Amino acid sequence: MEHTHTAWTEYQKQHQQRFLDEMLELLRIPSISAKSEHKDDMRKCAGLVRQRLLDSGCDRAEVMETAGHPVVYGEKIVDPGKPTVLVYGHYDVQPADPLELWHSGPFDPVIKEGKVFARGSADDKGQFYMHVKALETMVKTGSLESNVKFLIEGEEEVGSPNLGTFVAANKELLKADVILISDSSMISMETPSLDIGVRGLSYIQVEVTGPNRDLHSGTYGGAVANPITMLCKMIASLHDENNHITIPGFYDDVVEASAEERELMARAPFNEKEYKEDLGVKEVWGEKGYTVNERTGIRPTMEVNGIWGGYTGEGAKTVLPSKAYAKISARLVPNQNSRKLTDILLEHFRKIAPAGVTVHAEEHHGGEPYMTPIDSKGYKAAAKAIQTTFGKEPIPVRGGGSIPICSILERELGTKIIFMGFGLDNDNLHSPNEKYNLENYYKGIETIPYFHRFFAQG
Amino acid sequence: MEHTHTAWTEYQKQHQQRFLDEMLELLRIPSISAKSEHKDDMRKCAGLVRQRLLDSGCDRAEVMETAGHPVVYGEKIVDPGKPTVLVYGHYDVQPADPLELWHSGPFDPVIKEGKVFARGSADDKGQFYMHVKALETMVKTGSLESNVKFLIEGEEEVGSPNLGTFVAANKELLKADVILISDSSMISMETPSLDIGVRGLSYIQVEVTGPNRDLHSGTYGGAVANPITMLCKMIASLHDENNHITIPGFYDDVVEASAEERELMARAPFNEKEYKEDLGVKEVWGEKGYTVNERTGIRPTMEVNGIWGGYTGEGAKTVLPSKAYAKISARLVPNQNSRKLTDILLEHFRKIAPAGVTVHAEEHHGGEPYMTPIDSKGYKAAAKAIQTTFGKEPIPVRGGGSIPICSILERELGTKIIFMGFGLDNDNLHSPNEKYNLENYYKGIETIPYFHRFFAQG
Repeated sequence: MEHTHTAWTEYQKQHQQRFLDEMLELLRIPSISAKSEHKDDMRKCAGLVRQRLLDSGCDRAEVMETAGHPVVYGEKIVDPGKPTVLVYGHYDVQPADPLELWHSGPFDPVIKEGKVFARGSADDKGQFYMHVKALETMVKTGSLESNVKFLIEGEEEVGSPNLGTFVAANKELLKADVILISDSSMISMETPSLDIGVRGLSYIQVEVTGPNRDLHSGTYGGAVANPITMLCKMIASLHDENNHITIPGFYDDVVEASAEERELMARAPFNEKEYKEDLGVKEVWGEKGYTVNERTGIRPTMEVNGIWGGYTGEGAKTVLPSKAYAKISARLVPNQNSRKLTDILLEHFRKIAPAGVTVHAEEHHGGEPYMTPIDSKGYKAAAKAIQTTFGKEPIPVRGGGSIPICSILERELGTKIIFMGFGLDNDNLHSPNEKYNLENYYKGIETIPYFHRFFAQG
Repeated sequence: MEHTHTAWTEYQKQHQQRFLDEMLELLRIPSISAKSEHKDDMRKCAGLVRQRLLDSGCDRAEVMETAGHPVVYGEKIVDPGKPTVLVYGHYDVQPADPLELWHSGPFDPVIKEGKVFARGSADDKGQFYMHVKALETMVKTGSLESNVKFLIEGEEEVGSPNLGTFVAANKELLKADVILISDSSMISMETPSLDIGVRGLSYIQVEVTGPNRDLHSGTYGGAVANPITMLCKMIASLHDENNHITIPGFYDDVVEASAEERELMARAPFNEKEYKEDLGVKEVWGEKGYTVNERTGIRPTMEVNGIWGGYTGEGAKTVLPSKAYAKISARLVPNQNSRKLTDILLEHFRKIAPAGVTVHAEEHHGGEPYMTPIDSKGYKAAAKAIQTTFGKEPIPVRGGGSIPICSILERELGTKIIFMGFGLDNDNLHSPNEKYNLENYYKGIETIPYFHRFFAQG
């Protein structure tokens, strides 16, 4: 065994620069799934992922069609009798706006102080690609002990609208004993952690219409309901003075975390002073009665992701606008149901529309919350792999983000999901200057082969 | 006298098409004062106004520099001993956004159903140009009985930041017995009216900063104050349940309209059903205890003119943004002071900033409210002119809009202002598809010479 480890290390050391160059090549493709003008980039990116899977040891790799952006599937079957690991990832990225806040081009990766700055570096190109290079390492050093399948999709950032259909239609192809995902973060390199859950998501867009045209705010101001003001009143009413969400039924299905889990969470290292300094805020905020980690882990939340209406250009324009808009999303926890909560949100906004305006609310996308048990073979293999390369047992934590496909994958494939993320919370996911630390990238490539070994042997 | 009238009518009829063509030429220049990229268009427009003043009978016309966009001055002095009318207008226009709502190009004037559709058609190019063509009519028919001066500025739509300095430095040049402005509307062609006042304006921009960068709403949502939500809470708090403005001190200096004035206002024709139908709203809105006309005439109001923050593009992005912004303006009535109210607004927003965010509020521009007496020689000349061409005595009304320069002009020149607007409330001022009815344009050109005659004789 020690021999193999040395061989892995040696191989990875030799090919370090190429492993990085290949990741940068992926990052140069602006594969923004939300924007229709990037349709060709999406296809180009899928093609490159397929080629790299083949180059890295897959026996088979294909770009497979869906009703939206294509999925890339790949596999390396060493022995059908051996356990199979299905690696899920996504090659699509979030939009890069606001562009003016980036220090370098979002699709011109720059390496600075040991970090790769580019959209998608941590979410999720840099992370799923660790698995591709881990496969290469195991194949080239003759040490692959499990079968490996890859399901790399192109619509994660828009809520995976077509992946459920794809997975249902390809159950046999995707059959596996465990699903492994690196699309999340750990507390720090000094305090490795493994996510045991992700929050669900309900995302809606609200359109408020006042008068049938933009009006002069002098001629009409004071006599006609202003849709911006009305939208603000609706948004302001979503949280009470304790920052509890006021929408009727919102908390109905929430399973309260046990005292034991909250006790465990409280032991995870957290420095509020550093947290505030990192974010540049004087105060943290949130639901009364819960700590910062609880607010982002075990509690459902509601955020306005965007708002616009009226004149937003240079200078002053005295308009009373016809329309105002907001994008609003809720993060959900077990056992909230995304479909049900989306309906509750849509209904709520329609119901609270003030007199004088009309409200049109529609669904963007959603995803179910997901939890994974810590006594499974998969979790134990992940914990042991982390222990091996980090020298420390990982802390189990609940992640605040959402991977909408989790509940669908488990339902369709009957397989548990293991979250083994190597990112950090300050990777600027979904923000300008997204980055991924090279140390984390290489540590991931080093750690993943152990997961396969321990899972195959376990 | 009847001879002259016939001569005017005859002359105007003969030159009707050219009077229109010249207006359209002005409308083709995108003289948007708020946008720096239109600086050259502003200068081009000023040059054309100067040329037209000379062509139309002025002895002298000049483009005069200010610290911002230039002023156009022109004059026709028939006899220094005769009364002098100073015509004020502006050649700058509001921005044309949102462009997608225009049925034709904002700077490609189109004539449809007797209306000129173009930005600036009613506000104010089409209106000030009536005075230029009225001068031409009087000069060419040998019937000008007063001296005429023109002060056509280029910064009205951005709050006339440099006109005060200009007027103070040119008191002698601008000396007049009355100031005449056509930059407002009348009730209808069947119910002519004369504005006896305009509201003042205090316009501010608010910037709310939460975290120092855009964050992932999953990782941080629920634990960090969202600047959009906080901005909405602040905006929502500006009006109470009766739509009174809640800002301390806001109403302190308001002079309540007399019971007599409110009684007079109530007699002006107003059809709430038609008003709502025209605007496409189910309900009117506004301060409890006041009618629609009172809300837009005698009461101060507060409108959000624009709001933006976070992701506003296609699709969904799960961001908790760093910043959110709003443009907010108040309309003021006698004796509110714009400077004082702006300070009250700025201070209020800084004071109500919720914990977890910082608020930066700054001034855009302002203007004082203004009232003109109905027993003056100027008002009487205007009323008689309207009576002559409309066959009906005009109703005195308070306009809801603002002409920030009024109080400055009166202070510097010691002269009262007469508002003789020929627009209509549905001209879509500051909105897409701004229009000016040709009937109103020609009626204005027909009426204005009577004002000069009655004022000179009065």
